[in-house]
Amino acid sequence: MPDTTRRWVLARHVEGAPTPEDFRLEETPLGELADGRFLSRVILGSVDPGTRSRLSGGDSYAGAMKIGEGIDGFCVAEVIESNNPNYAVGDLIAAGGGWREHFVSDGRGFIQKITDRRVPLGCWIGILGVPGLTAWFGMNRVAQAKAGETLLVTSAAGPVGATAGQIGKKLGMRVVGIAGGPKKCAWLKDEAGFDAVIDYKAEPDLTAAIKAACPEGVDVLFDNVGNEMVDRVLPLMKLRGRVVVSGQVADYNVEPQDRVGLKNTSVFITHRVRMEGLVVFDDIRQFGAAQAQMADWIADGSLKFAIEEFDGLESAAEAFCGLFRGENFGRRLVRVSQDPAA
Amino acid sequence: MPDTTRRWVLARHVEGAPTPEDFRLEETPLGELADGRFLSRVILGSVDPGTRSRLSGGDSYAGAMKIGEGIDGFCVAEVIESNNPNYAVGDLIAAGGGWREHFVSDGRGFIQKITDRRVPLGCWIGILGVPGLTAWFGMNRVAQAKAGETLLVTSAAGPVGATAGQIGKKLGMRVVGIAGGPKKCAWLKDEAGFDAVIDYKAEPDLTAAIKAACPEGVDVLFDNVGNEMVDRVLPLMKLRGRVVVSGQVADYNVEPQDRVGLKNTSVFITHRVRMEGLVVFDDIRQFGAAQAQMADWIADGSLKFAIEEFDGLESAAEAFCGLFRGENFGRRLVRVSQDPAA
Repeated sequence: MPDTTRRWVLARHVEGAPTPEDFRLEETPLGELADGRFLSRVILGSVDPGTRSRLSGGDSYAGAMKIGEGIDGFCVAEVIESNNPNYAVGDLIAAGGGWREHFVSDGRGFIQKITDRRVPLGCWIGILGVPGLTAWFGMNRVAQAKAGETLLVTSAAGPVGATAGQIGKKLGMRVVGIAGGPKKCAWLKDEAGFDAVIDYKAEPDLTAAIKAACPEGVDVLFDNVGNEMVDRVLPLMKLRGRVVVSGQVADYNVEPQDRVGLKNTSVFITHRVRMEGLVVFDDIRQFGAAQAQMADWIADGSLKFAIEEFDGLESAAEAFCGLFRGENFGRRLVRVSQDPAA
Repeated sequence: MPDTTRRWVLARHVEGAPTPEDFRLEETPLGELADGRFLSRVILGSVDPGTRSRLSGGDSYAGAMKIGEGIDGFCVAEVIESNNPNYAVGDLIAAGGGWREHFVSDGRGFIQKITDRRVPLGCWIGILGVPGLTAWFGMNRVAQAKAGETLLVTSAAGPVGATAGQIGKKLGMRVVGIAGGPKKCAWLKDEAGFDAVIDYKAEPDLTAAIKAACPEGVDVLFDNVGNEMVDRVLPLMKLRGRVVVSGQVADYNVEPQDRVGLKNTSVFITHRVRMEGLVVFDDIRQFGAAQAQMADWIADGSLKFAIEEFDGLESAAEAFCGLFRGENFGRRLVRVSQDPAA
């Protein structure tokens, strides 16, 4: 067992958009493999926009990270040493290991064994992981989306949005996506089967474009962007429309007082709109059923996903920072070591 | 049957806070009492803050009123002539007659016969009418309020807020109200049984006062004020808190672009907050059960209400305008003619 491993830590509290200088790659001791613990090597790690909400200083949010703390992140890993009877050497797991090469776990926290190898390993921290499950429970539990309704998805080429839109199609909805650039838009239309896609970078009047694409209004807004987008769409919501607050990537970098505010709130009364957010771990008991259904859809080719792989743990900070420049296309993963089956 | 009656109409579209000059009292023909119709004389009329949302010009809201249109409003009335087999002379009804002395109805729209005379007639357009039912369905259906939770009610001495708070007490909640002035606050504490009351006119730091009164946070915000109040309370919401958008009295007078915006929306994700509005007529099939329960509570003295009576149809416009200066204490009614039992 190695004495140390490498991990990314917070080098300074982040102001505005994150930059690679906000993070530091360091050697850190692994500690002993006490009874009940096991050691894993990370194969693929993920960078998540939601992590940004914990990187600013101040005491405004209880989950704020301290300088020098290791950055959280989900990973696919292989157990390489074990003093825990539930995890054997060679087991593949999805877990919250962080941006690092190895980690020791006592088996607590979110750890899932990967047994279904029909789908690429990266899916277990993508479309079958937090992003895909956020889409699933956001659409089914929070939005209670129904056939015949109109769904508008923002940041639609991201891993949450693309999955939410395809779940909408499976449910029989009319699905409209908003994304940036012709490549993402073409993929959403041609591969993911969206009914209409709006390229926000090419539209001089985004509101007019949304109205044109949703002539009868919006039943479900599945938003990953933030207040500016929500306030734009609120006046277009249909009676009993639902706004799912899935992510706020445009607001994470801005202090609350400097954010766009929601002003068009009269629709909450006139149109009985409901707005609700989610953190997917509230639905953990239903993960298995959702993953089984989505894995079947991936295996039969009817649920599409995009993965962008960055090479080497060194690339994690840069991969993360690019999320806030709208660069990512699909799930952004960092290849830390090779898949044992490769 | 009289040929004409008097009614209030919209004299001009309202900008900002309404003034009596925005309305005009006029003689209007009553028309013939065709088959299926009946004539009623208004006993008590109501002025409702929600009416304000329809009085501005422009096409931003489908319900906007035209100049010269009669002002809507609920009233208690007595049927005095009838060509409708379902309504007999002498029947007492609660209906949407408007700010007027007589009205002819064909029996369509919301009309409810008043048979339970244990409670004052005015209750049927107050605590047993739209305000009280908004409180009932806002607390039970929308908020799904539960024993042990903390409820914060704004505009708490108004007919909606005072009823919502007392329903909260019946449900076993800790109930905190915000109202303006010592008279309202004393009534809420001593009569309506609120656990704590904040006088916003006397508090230099309203947020600090709310924190002190709700040290563990707020499970249910029942808001009748608008965005500024909601944004102030959002950071204090507990996990899975609910914001009931019941009314927006402070925002009705302000164009959407000039309103305070909700910025503290990150709690929708971090604290899984749900925000939802209501229009009480969605629950019309459950009105009878809610009214029967509340009438019992009124009759046994355990549900309190306050009524402010203005004398004469002439006072309707002034009574309405005062709602936006925070003057009203309880349900504001206009006495148009005498109760037949009086």
